[in-house]
Amino acid sequence: MITVLSGGVGAARLLRALCLVLDPGEMTAVVNVGDDLVLHGLTICPDLDTITYTLAGLGNDELGWGLRGETWRVMDELATLGGAAWFRLGDRDLATHLYRSQRLREGATKSDVARELCDRWGVKIRLLPVTNDDVATVFDTELGRLSFQEYFVQHRHDVAVRSITFEGAADARPTAEVLAALRDASRIVIAPSNPLISIDPILQIPGVREILENRRDDVVAVSPIVNGAALKGPADRLLLELGHDVSPLGVADFYKGLIGTIIIDEADAALAERIGSHGIDVRVTTTIMAGPGNAERLARAVLS
Amino acid sequence: MITVLSGGVGAARLLRALCLVLDPGEMTAVVNVGDDLVLHGLTICPDLDTITYTLAGLGNDELGWGLRGETWRVMDELATLGGAAWFRLGDRDLATHLYRSQRLREGATKSDVARELCDRWGVKIRLLPVTNDDVATVFDTELGRLSFQEYFVQHRHDVAVRSITFEGAADARPTAEVLAALRDASRIVIAPSNPLISIDPILQIPGVREILENRRDDVVAVSPIVNGAALKGPADRLLLELGHDVSPLGVADFYKGLIGTIIIDEADAALAERIGSHGIDVRVTTTIMAGPGNAERLARAVLS
Repeated sequence: MITVLSGGVGAARLLRALCLVLDPGEMTAVVNVGDDLVLHGLTICPDLDTITYTLAGLGNDELGWGLRGETWRVMDELATLGGAAWFRLGDRDLATHLYRSQRLREGATKSDVARELCDRWGVKIRLLPVTNDDVATVFDTELGRLSFQEYFVQHRHDVAVRSITFEGAADARPTAEVLAALRDASRIVIAPSNPLISIDPILQIPGVREILENRRDDVVAVSPIVNGAALKGPADRLLLELGHDVSPLGVADFYKGLIGTIIIDEADAALAERIGSHGIDVRVTTTIMAGPGNAERLARAVLS
Repeated sequence: MITVLSGGVGAARLLRALCLVLDPGEMTAVVNVGDDLVLHGLTICPDLDTITYTLAGLGNDELGWGLRGETWRVMDELATLGGAAWFRLGDRDLATHLYRSQRLREGATKSDVARELCDRWGVKIRLLPVTNDDVATVFDTELGRLSFQEYFVQHRHDVAVRSITFEGAADARPTAEVLAALRDASRIVIAPSNPLISIDPILQIPGVREILENRRDDVVAVSPIVNGAALKGPADRLLLELGHDVSPLGVADFYKGLIGTIIIDEADAALAERIGSHGIDVRVTTTIMAGPGNAERLARAVLS
């Protein structure tokens, strides 16, 4: 049994890669909820949905997010009404949010809904939101305080960030399933998601960091930074703005005390020795999951 | 200036008919909110929307509800997820509910949203929800307690009703605009909507009934019952089950003390004398708004 701390796209790809070499029934993803939002009255869980759609084989490869075969009837109409249409919700995608929102009103938890959607779509990896309590990632920026989606979507993460906080995290409780999945896993993997805004809001939930500290020899992280840049999203810029090294070294330092091993890309092989001197084992392989060959090689490195 | 107490379809048709003979800028509709519901996290106001869509010329004539040119992508997908798809929300219609729900979260009132949607669609009649407080029409039935939409849509109003209550009505406040529209109108019209479930929840909002009682000579009702039957919906069955006469006489008695005049259909001309003996003026005309000729004749009767 392995457990993967997961953000959105990067984690979804790693989980898909792991399915090439491991029975999905032996995997659990503990998923960030700091990006979750309520918009138009709908509760939206972007990371959970990205993983679910990707693993179900329903991901929209052209867009890089959302569902394939998507249409935009509701959003087009909402735009003509003058509504807030900047956060694009496709018609198929909306059904997910309507379903979740109604189930939550009926008393279900986000964990329940994640399980129900996985069952519906035949996703065998267990997806666990790290908590069923409300956590909101908030950015203090040059433009003032921005919610996650204001920062990420409305401003396309093109705004300088001074600090990041996770509102509600200190009072949130990890679910019992999450604690058990972290304690019982033979290996804990930190996906190549953004350390600062995808993984940190998981680590900030009381109890999670402590388990990793106690089990650091069983924890392996995959660097999301390759050759000084993020494969996707603002991880590179945020690391720089918040005083970290924009390299696997910066990532390793950010996870210091929590991980025994980091997997870095061949492009960064020259950094292996320096990272190793920080007391972290380093594995060098192809971390860019372009094509099934590379994906399988990375998956084997994660599990070896 | 005239003010029309309004439910959904019947009221929408009467308002459209009145536009044939009166400047829409001189009309206000005070609209029932007892059918309103929160479903999938979305705040839905069926009567306000039916009137808005009809007056905007966007009504779906085939269905008799919703928007023309409607598609069902979200609902179809929701059904495959096992979601609650019994309350059919078209893709275009959903945009209205997303818009309203977001605006309410931002602090707007239902009144604000009604005005914004009318502005957007060029509807000149002023539409006022009777209150911005929550009111819920609830049915005590042979199957137990049912919400409005459970009764109306899920059970297709094919279940015996023992009593109807309007939860929240006693504590709700009519808006200042509603009170002014009722006090200042030269005439108050009660649309041919269901007296028991469309008009009564308006009358139950504290202050509304009193204004009508004080102005009863200026109040005219259009009977929704013609020849012993409702033109649409369960008004006939409900009148019977709750001990009223299923005729314009039963309607006139229900509104006793509130109206000075009732307009009944030619099919019920024989009842005019009996109703008149109850101290209510009776006008006989065509109340079925089939075609613009009939609609205009009814409108002139209402205004004369």
